[in-house]
Amino acid sequence: MTGTTASDGPAAPARSGAAARRRGRPPRTESAGTRDRILDAAREEFSVHGYEKTSVRGIAKSAGVDSALVHHYFGTKEQVFEAAVEVAFAPVLAARSTVLEGPLDEVGERMTRMIVGLWESPVTRAPLLAIVRSAVNNEIAAGVFRRLVTSQLLRRIAGQLDAPDAELRAELAAAQLVGIAMVRYVIKVEPLASADAEQIIRRVAPVVQGHLTGR
Amino acid sequence: MTGTTASDGPAAPARSGAAARRRGRPPRTESAGTRDRILDAAREEFSVHGYEKTSVRGIAKSAGVDSALVHHYFGTKEQVFEAAVEVAFAPVLAARSTVLEGPLDEVGERMTRMIVGLWESPVTRAPLLAIVRSAVNNEIAAGVFRRLVTSQLLRRIAGQLDAPDAELRAELAAAQLVGIAMVRYVIKVEPLASADAEQIIRRVAPVVQGHLTGR
Repeated sequence: MTGTTASDGPAAPARSGAAARRRGRPPRTESAGTRDRILDAAREEFSVHGYEKTSVRGIAKSAGVDSALVHHYFGTKEQVFEAAVEVAFAPVLAARSTVLEGPLDEVGERMTRMIVGLWESPVTRAPLLAIVRSAVNNEIAAGVFRRLVTSQLLRRIAGQLDAPDAELRAELAAAQLVGIAMVRYVIKVEPLASADAEQIIRRVAPVVQGHLTGR
Repeated sequence: MTGTTASDGPAAPARSGAAARRRGRPPRTESAGTRDRILDAAREEFSVHGYEKTSVRGIAKSAGVDSALVHHYFGTKEQVFEAAVEVAFAPVLAARSTVLEGPLDEVGERMTRMIVGLWESPVTRAPLLAIVRSAVNNEIAAGVFRRLVTSQLLRRIAGQLDAPDAELRAELAAAQLVGIAMVRYVIKVEPLASADAEQIIRRVAPVVQGHLTGR
């Protein structure tokens, strides 16, 4: 694939495509599609600068394309952010099935292991931290995060529970895990920050289970 | 009191005091001390712009004084931030005695009520949110928050517990409450965001108690 004519998305409009070819840097690799290149640039820009200080223009510049092409592939800044968050969120979705499958009386431990595991690995921690930072600082970013977590994770877990207040239960369980992430990995309060991950899981999993299936 | 000669702090150095008088705006009220005026300006600047984007110069300008006077009263930007956070944290400290006093088997409910109460009130929620935003975004701000929460709250609560792992227990309990604050008040995930506060307390207080005094 060459230039900005991506084969992995809709064809670029002729004008902006041509402009991008004139002004843009050459693709980083011949095999990377333009759409993916924009998405990589967006993830990097949002991660470094946060939602508010990132602009479509900055993303376009970093990807070596015209801003019109960013709008063409993704739409508004909010929509670029949503696409970037979805990519960063992919490990969560990949791990999700391990939570949803298995006996219900161990779902608390599976959910706890998934979240602790994602935060323990520096590879998955960095993009999660970037999402949390943007969501805490900006209402629009918070909305994107909220929709994604609710539709892709919390409602699915709630769907496994046989309780009229299943969604509230899933959110109270999530709140315990969000709090662990904040105190241990973001604010880094000791001794929790340096405690053994298995010790944390042992303490937290029964609480998460209690929220999900307790009386 | 007039100009920048504060009676509620150490005397300002003559040079910067004079500079502030020449360049500065008049004090907002005659009774407000210069130190308090700088602190008010600092809280406002940190709250609106966050730790990273706030400068000592911006605080000085907003307070109508010379930057040297800000340094004189508070020291570095980190120290100004610490003083501003302590002021914003005052309602937590005021409510702290209600947690520390009373039967140990109800400490979980008292701690939960304190935190939910502080976040329920818009007056105390705004400064807490500003602290959380700064702490999530900046390592130095996170350090200030961590020291304050640890020394003023978590260690005191841990001191009430008769357990070798008292500090870890206090932090796991705090993590549940931090998570509730994040999911309900910051990210605003429904139905938790709109649930009745008493319902949340009923669900969360036993969990907090379990972390603190459970087996």
